[in-house]
Amino acid sequence: MAEQVKIAIDLMGGENSPNKTLEGADLFLSRNKNIKDLKFYFFGDENIIQEKLKKYKNLNNNYKIFNTEIIVSDELSPISALKKGKDSSMWKSIQAQIDHKADITLSAGNTGVLLVMSKMILKTLENVDKPALAGLWPNEKNMNVVLDLGANIDCSEKNLIDFSEMGSALFKSIFPDDTPKVSLLNIGLEEMKGTELLKTTFLKLKEISKLGDFKFNGYIEGNQITKGESNVIVTDGFTGNVALKTAEGTANFLTQTLKKSLSENLLSKISVIFSYFAMKKFKERLDPRKYNGAIFLGLNGPVVKSHGGTDALGFSYSIELCYKIAKGKLIEKIKNNLGHIKSLNDKGQY
Amino acid sequence: MAEQVKIAIDLMGGENSPNKTLEGADLFLSRNKNIKDLKFYFFGDENIIQEKLKKYKNLNNNYKIFNTEIIVSDELSPISALKKGKDSSMWKSIQAQIDHKADITLSAGNTGVLLVMSKMILKTLENVDKPALAGLWPNEKNMNVVLDLGANIDCSEKNLIDFSEMGSALFKSIFPDDTPKVSLLNIGLEEMKGTELLKTTFLKLKEISKLGDFKFNGYIEGNQITKGESNVIVTDGFTGNVALKTAEGTANFLTQTLKKSLSENLLSKISVIFSYFAMKKFKERLDPRKYNGAIFLGLNGPVVKSHGGTDALGFSYSIELCYKIAKGKLIEKIKNNLGHIKSLNDKGQY
Repeated sequence: MAEQVKIAIDLMGGENSPNKTLEGADLFLSRNKNIKDLKFYFFGDENIIQEKLKKYKNLNNNYKIFNTEIIVSDELSPISALKKGKDSSMWKSIQAQIDHKADITLSAGNTGVLLVMSKMILKTLENVDKPALAGLWPNEKNMNVVLDLGANIDCSEKNLIDFSEMGSALFKSIFPDDTPKVSLLNIGLEEMKGTELLKTTFLKLKEISKLGDFKFNGYIEGNQITKGESNVIVTDGFTGNVALKTAEGTANFLTQTLKKSLSENLLSKISVIFSYFAMKKFKERLDPRKYNGAIFLGLNGPVVKSHGGTDALGFSYSIELCYKIAKGKLIEKIKNNLGHIKSLNDKGQY
Repeated sequence: MAEQVKIAIDLMGGENSPNKTLEGADLFLSRNKNIKDLKFYFFGDENIIQEKLKKYKNLNNNYKIFNTEIIVSDELSPISALKKGKDSSMWKSIQAQIDHKADITLSAGNTGVLLVMSKMILKTLENVDKPALAGLWPNEKNMNVVLDLGANIDCSEKNLIDFSEMGSALFKSIFPDDTPKVSLLNIGLEEMKGTELLKTTFLKLKEISKLGDFKFNGYIEGNQITKGESNVIVTDGFTGNVALKTAEGTANFLTQTLKKSLSENLLSKISVIFSYFAMKKFKERLDPRKYNGAIFLGLNGPVVKSHGGTDALGFSYSIELCYKIAKGKLIEKIKNNLGHIKSLNDKGQY
């Protein structure tokens, strides 16, 4: 029998939880009826959960409930959350990786608190200075990994190199058959473009790519991210966060303008009938809920942050991401990649 | 009689020039038949131009040709362009602001060379350390100014403050009736978010906005740029360039995915007939050619860079931008705004 995958879920974080978190778990199972090796560790208020569970037919014998009474609210600062947070569903769901050998943790709660708690409980991996926040972007071919999305405003050369190795490990754990292609986000493609930091990192990545963990595609500009030629886009947390949010804003603006145009006159309203299925497909292809889930990389265990405002469908996709990451042995792959760098380092070769 | 507006145009720069540049000038005039106070100063190969001019009915008695034989090609580095560049259409069209009292210069040629030549000929304004590159973005209400888009990778607090004042002057010269609202691009809205540089600039801008040149809206995140709540988005050239290109890439990706979806089956193809006018309106509203033209700010004269790959329609809109900027007395407004800061500075108040 295959090893069991144990996903610890903070059922209480995010808007409209635990409704959406439980429904999300049920939705995930109904989409993946062939998955038999999964066990959920649910953290939250047992009374509420037991009552709600009756509705979800796919949830039976494949979960265990751990009763917690405290919820980390979105308004709390990390400091005040930590004061009484050790009994919270969030804390316990991370702690489950140690106490109950959970493979991965998922929460839709407060990002800052989740990051601080994760660092405290799981600790940063040896040789990693700064954990990063990675996300998935849709592209013309499939999807790619972008990091850092905001955990680290200032990054060093070492950070960007670690991000390249960790991002490659993440991509490889989700898409086992592909060799990750890494690019550095810059404002031009020529070798001498950009900041001094990018120029020296460029040269080092060229060397390090010879280790074979990834192919280095050089620089990439913002307008090429969605082309799908590179799978891992590396940048500092400030730039990554601006790029991510600008892309979100642009996508919203376009779809809203389109909607408005199509509801303007009778003819265009009729067209909506004929284009219904095509539009549905278009929306499904780019539905942000499908790419829901940011991954903390660089800790001794994987933690995934679901968007707080997403719904059950969005939450079900972050469970799917967790399942893939756990099956793909992400942490093993990260340790392996970082070990390559360390051995270069020990030989004084970089 | 109103003062004449003299626009110096490098006819030879960019793809498919001078065809598109001349056709663009003709298109602009055909859209604006009421404009009688405009004179074009055309710089390029007179023989070619004279021959082509026969086609364009709106161009008569409203232009003057200055013969130049050298073209700055897109492949040239600034250094090699400058060697033989002083006889080029690009150089002469900038020099026209001095030699022939042209009000503004427009070129679709090599951006780097245009920036270097503009600085050499027009010189940087007193008290400005770094000229900036500003662009126009469509938003839900109309359009806004974003700067810097890539002229300066590293920016100081003073640079960002200058950009705020210059960007406000630009907005005001295009939209005389509105008070510019300035925002600093950041990765969160709270006062203590972001880099140290942003935090100190935030506090200074709060003070400086009391001078009345603009209203300071605080921080803005990437997903709010297209909301239209702020008119002038200020950032360093690295972040601005990444944001601009990421927005372009996202927009292209979405429209291509939409196109593909709509051509997938018979029903959706039929829908295209009914949605034709709505889609046309949608495309027109967001047509990047309408926002064509980046403006160099901080020199003793305005220079506009048209996208090299645009067509005649795109070029006609950059002429429209030039006309508005010249009528709006951009340089006067910039000097006025920067003067306010200088007087604060002299009093030691910032």
